[in-house]
Amino acid sequence: MQFHHKGYVSGDPRLSDAAGSGLVRPEELPAEVDVLIVGSGPAGMLLAAQMSQFPEVTTRVVEKREGRLAIGQADGIQPRSVETFQAFGFAERIIAEAYNIAYMNFWGPDPENPRNIVRTSRTEDYGLRISEFPHLIVNQARVLDYFAEAAANGPGRIGLDYGVEFVGLTVHEDGEYPVEVRVRHLVEGWPGEERTVRAKYVVGCDGARSGVREAIGRKHLGEVSLHAWGVMDVLVNTDFPDWRTKCAINSVAGNILHIPREGGYLSRMYIDLGEVAGDDNHQVRQTPVEAIIAKANEILHPYSIEVKEVAWHSVYEVGHRVTDRFDDVTEGTERAPRVFLTGDACHTHSAKAGQGMNVSMQDGFNLGWKLGLVLSGRSPESLLSTYTEERQPVAQQLIDFDRKWSALMARKPEEISDPQDLATHYLATAEFPSGFMTHYGTSAIVGDAAHQALAPGFPLGMRFKSVGVVRVCDGNVVHLGHHAKADGRWRVYAFADAPGDGLSEWASWLGTSDSPLTRFTPSDADVDAVFDVKAIYQQSYKDVDITAVPDIFLPKTGRFGLTDWEKVYAAGANGWTEADIFTQRELSRDGVVVVVRPDQYVAAVLPLTATAELTDFFSRSMIPAR
Amino acid sequence: MQFHHKGYVSGDPRLSDAAGSGLVRPEELPAEVDVLIVGSGPAGMLLAAQMSQFPEVTTRVVEKREGRLAIGQADGIQPRSVETFQAFGFAERIIAEAYNIAYMNFWGPDPENPRNIVRTSRTEDYGLRISEFPHLIVNQARVLDYFAEAAANGPGRIGLDYGVEFVGLTVHEDGEYPVEVRVRHLVEGWPGEERTVRAKYVVGCDGARSGVREAIGRKHLGEVSLHAWGVMDVLVNTDFPDWRTKCAINSVAGNILHIPREGGYLSRMYIDLGEVAGDDNHQVRQTPVEAIIAKANEILHPYSIEVKEVAWHSVYEVGHRVTDRFDDVTEGTERAPRVFLTGDACHTHSAKAGQGMNVSMQDGFNLGWKLGLVLSGRSPESLLSTYTEERQPVAQQLIDFDRKWSALMARKPEEISDPQDLATHYLATAEFPSGFMTHYGTSAIVGDAAHQALAPGFPLGMRFKSVGVVRVCDGNVVHLGHHAKADGRWRVYAFADAPGDGLSEWASWLGTSDSPLTRFTPSDADVDAVFDVKAIYQQSYKDVDITAVPDIFLPKTGRFGLTDWEKVYAAGANGWTEADIFTQRELSRDGVVVVVRPDQYVAAVLPLTATAELTDFFSRSMIPAR
Repeated sequence: MQFHHKGYVSGDPRLSDAAGSGLVRPEELPAEVDVLIVGSGPAGMLLAAQMSQFPEVTTRVVEKREGRLAIGQADGIQPRSVETFQAFGFAERIIAEAYNIAYMNFWGPDPENPRNIVRTSRTEDYGLRISEFPHLIVNQARVLDYFAEAAANGPGRIGLDYGVEFVGLTVHEDGEYPVEVRVRHLVEGWPGEERTVRAKYVVGCDGARSGVREAIGRKHLGEVSLHAWGVMDVLVNTDFPDWRTKCAINSVAGNILHIPREGGYLSRMYIDLGEVAGDDNHQVRQTPVEAIIAKANEILHPYSIEVKEVAWHSVYEVGHRVTDRFDDVTEGTERAPRVFLTGDACHTHSAKAGQGMNVSMQDGFNLGWKLGLVLSGRSPESLLSTYTEERQPVAQQLIDFDRKWSALMARKPEEISDPQDLATHYLATAEFPSGFMTHYGTSAIVGDAAHQALAPGFPLGMRFKSVGVVRVCDGNVVHLGHHAKADGRWRVYAFADAPGDGLSEWASWLGTSDSPLTRFTPSDADVDAVFDVKAIYQQSYKDVDITAVPDIFLPKTGRFGLTDWEKVYAAGANGWTEADIFTQRELSRDGVVVVVRPDQYVAAVLPLTATAELTDFFSRSMIPAR
Repeated sequence: MQFHHKGYVSGDPRLSDAAGSGLVRPEELPAEVDVLIVGSGPAGMLLAAQMSQFPEVTTRVVEKREGRLAIGQADGIQPRSVETFQAFGFAERIIAEAYNIAYMNFWGPDPENPRNIVRTSRTEDYGLRISEFPHLIVNQARVLDYFAEAAANGPGRIGLDYGVEFVGLTVHEDGEYPVEVRVRHLVEGWPGEERTVRAKYVVGCDGARSGVREAIGRKHLGEVSLHAWGVMDVLVNTDFPDWRTKCAINSVAGNILHIPREGGYLSRMYIDLGEVAGDDNHQVRQTPVEAIIAKANEILHPYSIEVKEVAWHSVYEVGHRVTDRFDDVTEGTERAPRVFLTGDACHTHSAKAGQGMNVSMQDGFNLGWKLGLVLSGRSPESLLSTYTEERQPVAQQLIDFDRKWSALMARKPEEISDPQDLATHYLATAEFPSGFMTHYGTSAIVGDAAHQALAPGFPLGMRFKSVGVVRVCDGNVVHLGHHAKADGRWRVYAFADAPGDGLSEWASWLGTSDSPLTRFTPSDADVDAVFDVKAIYQQSYKDVDITAVPDIFLPKTGRFGLTDWEKVYAAGANGWTEADIFTQRELSRDGVVVVVRPDQYVAAVLPLTATAELTDFFSRSMIPAR
């Protein structure tokens, strides 16, 4: 964590200095805003936290609820989401309070007495070593709390406008604030009063019944199945030995997906209520919790649960829907989008793969920096078209994955030929639900694969997978990727050639007027304001002489022009890192430049000599600042 | 982290339910309190956080400052202190913001050109693997912030009474509140007004010029040397390559102890100002910061610093003092103590070994649970006599260590025969400054060594050194010691014999009227209210059938009588723990019971069969509850 570069200040370093719109933030929703976020779920709150890093932009979040969410429904947190939390500064805190999934166990009918269930296999979840981050279960309400804190503590000081309901919107063809939004105040001041807010951009984070989606005429395509599930968060006493382990339970009486929750006592159970009649008309949703508990006990036989408290329960039919497009642009027209959809507003599915909240947050992460760069004048409006291009295929993949997983989970024992196949499928597909299989195609912000061979371990369009390195200034072993905060900056990692001459030449070029650093960084801004450039040497840290490192990697920034010592790393393994990043990520020993987007996706892989290509790459999505 | 056992509650799990004195906490300092803490430094604030876990006790903290400390002087945090922070629930947060000491480097005169300094050696600090916790540098103000949060969030909801100055006290021979304390309000309400507070116990955490020490007539013995040091926290630009590494610099011009601070920019420098004249009369303390900076530049030659901001600076002569006794009892009398001294109030020394704040906090940790158990009626007053018995020798060891370290640090180059000897001394003594060499003698709360051979890796009287184990209920690898929160409870770790029959017999006995569990736990309290009993099996976690574990290790507690699943562990190593705790701590494979005090010190080591001895041990410091 870096701070004090503006001078010594006592206090919580997680609280940034207010700036721009964060300096004077009107209590009342202003008549004109740059970004209006509708809804404060996971996508909306990540977006709020991200926009708080762009204090030059005025962002407001309207939420019809009167206050903080008390009981959230989502709870599964992929490693990719924890990685994202790290970038927003609260990973270590949420890990400390969450349930950590170490194993997933599978139960099926006892072959000798099929009325009883027996454990058929255990799969070690974190043994997969997919990520340095764990797979967690924690209530959505806590995730929102942490993002709210990040939004409030960022320079934009973004808070929530509670008790404000979205009514409708109209996108005008011109004007500085072309989106006219009608909202209704539900509480405080003017209950029931409707008013208009003009916005440059509106983001619909308003859930499965999204009013924003309806207002822009998007269609939510798909269907609800005739298979119903009950879900409950319960405190129980039980003789079931895996109460604190995630389990898929398949029994002659039906199926349970069992997920222990944070705190050591509470667990969530998804209980298969079976097929519903075609003319049921959602009557199944009235199933009382006592019936769900009874069904759970039938499935768990010979074990049983004695429910002491039901914290929350619900009944739903599995549905899978994706919206036809995630913004307000008509196919074939050239206009940049003004309205966006995220999360459940554009993709809904079953809860059982534990994906919804995670994919929603990545929607927000994908969109946030783009809005920030466009509104702060660093990128053209066209950048915003990449949002739907990138996120719609991800939503479709999610739906396909979830449909398959839901179907596998809902089978009857006689439909299962191999009792291990659910476990096998779980292991084989683990990277997808971990959140690491998103792969964006070539675009203005994902370069072509011409030089991918220089860094096969950093596939273009996929998220930058961190490795431990040694920080040269102090010898600390740190994860290279964890230094990349969600501050809207591009990262440029310069992996050095062995002698280092290539790197030095590249560093000299970076200071010339041809370089993206010079071209796209405002002349009155710090040299690292737009691009965060780091050097990683092949040598061990003791063999890197920090006084001989090119100045560009030791930039002087802030009020005092103080040297930033934390941009120079050594790959050389020591007792505390088994891995040399060059080996681990198969990096060329002749050096390679890896460009990473503000949302942590690998955007370009280039040799140190490909300077013109690097400038060209950024020219496609950035506006010269000088 | 365990929560929700009282039912589902949305919100920050770090906030406990208020109870007892925390339910209604008067704004104004009451006329009668159980514990009055004077001063809010590291010892006082740890004590406040600890007492907040005893809501049946009324505790207040008076502090003459008007509000939060903004600039603290101490900054060195031993691994033992981080271990303590873990028990108070904020280790992961303070680690994230602190400077982590990876290396200590040593510099001396260049043999070829003695006017220049050169790096003579590097020692890998965390390579010593003394603890699973790091060695940190972070401002005292932040440590106090976190303890203040823990005090405010605990069931006792303890806040600070700012602007209240200690004036004097009288210890009366009788009465329920025998200590009469005179305080003066400096701000708010009644500035300058003196009033009296009656307390059962008073703790002087009021620093080197302690008024409490003076009031009880204790003598602060020792002397101030004639060697002066300047100290400054500075933001600089420099060509000195180790600006971000802890260094001891020995040059012909003098000595520097250089300590990087949190945030990546700030560093602290202790600069040797040399011997002062015998008749100096502290004139050296007027040395201007410019002179200290000039001296630093002389010592650093050929490197130099350009100071951009001085966050804090001071000049002091090295002094070493220990108070003759840490409580108000006259040697030879039988009365239990009523007034205690902690931290700088009873031991002062140089800052350079980075010990002061750490030893002060351990003073508080040692005293807190004793006050809590005595005031809640679980232990006799005599327990309080062990405070000075245990902590005074520790203070003396600290003074001896610091005197040696200070002298080594203040040498002239010509006094150094072996240029490596400072590094060698640093490495050889590393466990002491890490905080792990405290060794309490046999007493009512440290058993005798008759059975120490059953667990040589848990030496009696030393702090319980944790090892990773597997939690049976969910397969998570966790540190056994990290489950022991600073909640005032005794821990009883039952390490099982291989077949487990011995453990089962011991568990059955624990339920009988002979056992300490029955004898010392109030009949209306949860079975784990006083003793937190855990079982650790030798088998791997997959081979432990949790449904066959004795009930006593799966206690049902709280409003709903919910099963606590987190007291059963398996030692068997898996891919994520290299160490089997039986091997690592040399535990008898026939089983062994290890008793650990609420402040994490090993108190007893007994075979599973020594049931009478276990009851006897607790009888020496506890009062039967039934």
